[in-house]
Amino acid sequence: MSLLIVGTVAFDAIETPFGKTDKIVGGAASYIALAASYFTKSSQLVSVVGDDFPQEFLNTLKAQGVDLSGLQIKQGQKSFFWSGRYHNDLNSRDTLDTQLNVLADFDPVVPESCREVDFLMLGNLMPIIQQKVLDQLTKRPKLIVLDTMNFWMDTSMDQLLKTLQQVDVLTINDSEARQLSGEYSLVKAAQKILKMGPKVLVIKKGEHGALLFNKDEVFFAPALPLEDVYDPTGAGDSFAGGFIGYLAKTKDISFENMKRAIIFGSAMASFTVERFGTERLIGLAPKDVEERVQEFIDLVQFDISLV
Amino acid sequence: MSLLIVGTVAFDAIETPFGKTDKIVGGAASYIALAASYFTKSSQLVSVVGDDFPQEFLNTLKAQGVDLSGLQIKQGQKSFFWSGRYHNDLNSRDTLDTQLNVLADFDPVVPESCREVDFLMLGNLMPIIQQKVLDQLTKRPKLIVLDTMNFWMDTSMDQLLKTLQQVDVLTINDSEARQLSGEYSLVKAAQKILKMGPKVLVIKKGEHGALLFNKDEVFFAPALPLEDVYDPTGAGDSFAGGFIGYLAKTKDISFENMKRAIIFGSAMASFTVERFGTERLIGLAPKDVEERVQEFIDLVQFDISLV
Repeated sequence: MSLLIVGTVAFDAIETPFGKTDKIVGGAASYIALAASYFTKSSQLVSVVGDDFPQEFLNTLKAQGVDLSGLQIKQGQKSFFWSGRYHNDLNSRDTLDTQLNVLADFDPVVPESCREVDFLMLGNLMPIIQQKVLDQLTKRPKLIVLDTMNFWMDTSMDQLLKTLQQVDVLTINDSEARQLSGEYSLVKAAQKILKMGPKVLVIKKGEHGALLFNKDEVFFAPALPLEDVYDPTGAGDSFAGGFIGYLAKTKDISFENMKRAIIFGSAMASFTVERFGTERLIGLAPKDVEERVQEFIDLVQFDISLV
Repeated sequence: MSLLIVGTVAFDAIETPFGKTDKIVGGAASYIALAASYFTKSSQLVSVVGDDFPQEFLNTLKAQGVDLSGLQIKQGQKSFFWSGRYHNDLNSRDTLDTQLNVLADFDPVVPESCREVDFLMLGNLMPIIQQKVLDQLTKRPKLIVLDTMNFWMDTSMDQLLKTLQQVDVLTINDSEARQLSGEYSLVKAAQKILKMGPKVLVIKKGEHGALLFNKDEVFFAPALPLEDVYDPTGAGDSFAGGFIGYLAKTKDISFENMKRAIIFGSAMASFTVERFGTERLIGLAPKDVEERVQEFIDLVQFDISLV
């Protein structure tokens, strides 16, 4: 197994200015696993669902090559549920309802086959659960990427800081980077956060693209200007999935290759937002992904020769 | 004369989270002329000031090669004055005071030597004044760039739409593009605006970069992530000055060359915000500009070979 993905597999109900959904499949790990599956067919999922979760979606994941032997299905219990409403600008949202259900006492078990995995993606989850996964590994992965959110900074900062010391790449959004560092300038925020453990920081700015920092370098990838953005849910997770999927495929964790991974991640995110939920990430052809990446190349390519 | 610049030369008083200024030199044309002067020494300014305006700044413009024979100095009158306070995120601001003074009855006179100019930059001003400049030209310039703002959309939309039909490039920010088009999606907004007259649209997104659209293509340039942004005032004007200055220097108005011009414009804007007012735009060396442009190249450069 080359990639282990940990995170929620869940239900969402979403309202955007363009419509609303009933309960549909969501969850960080659903998006991560789908996006990564376009780059590697050797991935495994560690998560938990209730017996209300649709087998059809699990079959889709399997068909995409995702190993589900680390997915716990809790009989008589319900899957995690989140409901939210996006504001007109789609850049902010209100949480309408959160039902932890199976997530309340989730105890992740990393299958034997994944304890020496090379690439680990810790999707957004309680930091203590992310830590429990790390504690079960028998060999340090080549690369550990962790995604988190403001909620855990508000409620679990100590554990988060402890876990952060053990990861290689942190992905958060701009306001979270400001919260975590106490710095408004993203450049200063990055400098501080890179002293907390991660050697690389990705700051996701939604429709405004993403920044990649290490101690000495910075890289910027735009988001693709789209005619219609229906639903931003899962964009950050799809981004993370494309990012680590590409790294797991190429087995190259240099900064130069992470730049490419950011572009592939951005491409996957650009698909996700074109439909509600995970719909757009299912059944893409390799050609679709390549064409989308070409659009990113065309978008930012310029030719200046300085003397 | 290869470049004619029209716009305000004025006083500003600015408050940002990092400090406040007394009356300092500002005005769209001040920034445009300074930024453009790093690319062409053949520019002329059409504007108006009162007799309270500091000769020292006019000497600076002259030293940068800006011809001031189109600058009216109104004896016994005061220069235009604007005062504003930026919010913590520096992306929005409140106007505290506006004193039109000499601008109230400004009647621009284009010097004989500029009536057949090749490049015309109409900085942010009442649309009727921008129109009066166009009406005095005896030959259609090779390129007309117009900058405007939401205030004129609120108060002078009819005249603005009429003037827009006569220009080649429009530069506005993202919320103004939404207001002008009635479309939230910037891609859809651009499509609509490109039917209003301009063949090229630049959407300025401040710290989130800039988009360049023509009917068939789109290009994105990021803003440079800066450690400290002291004062965003004049960033858009410096951008416009670098943009048209570079085009006037290279005499190439292809979309490919406009991409380069956007990068040079972004570089000039990145200097401006590092200090209050026009301070940082005075006394730059060509090497400073080149190094800054190299930072933009490094920031977005990646190498993906799609098979």
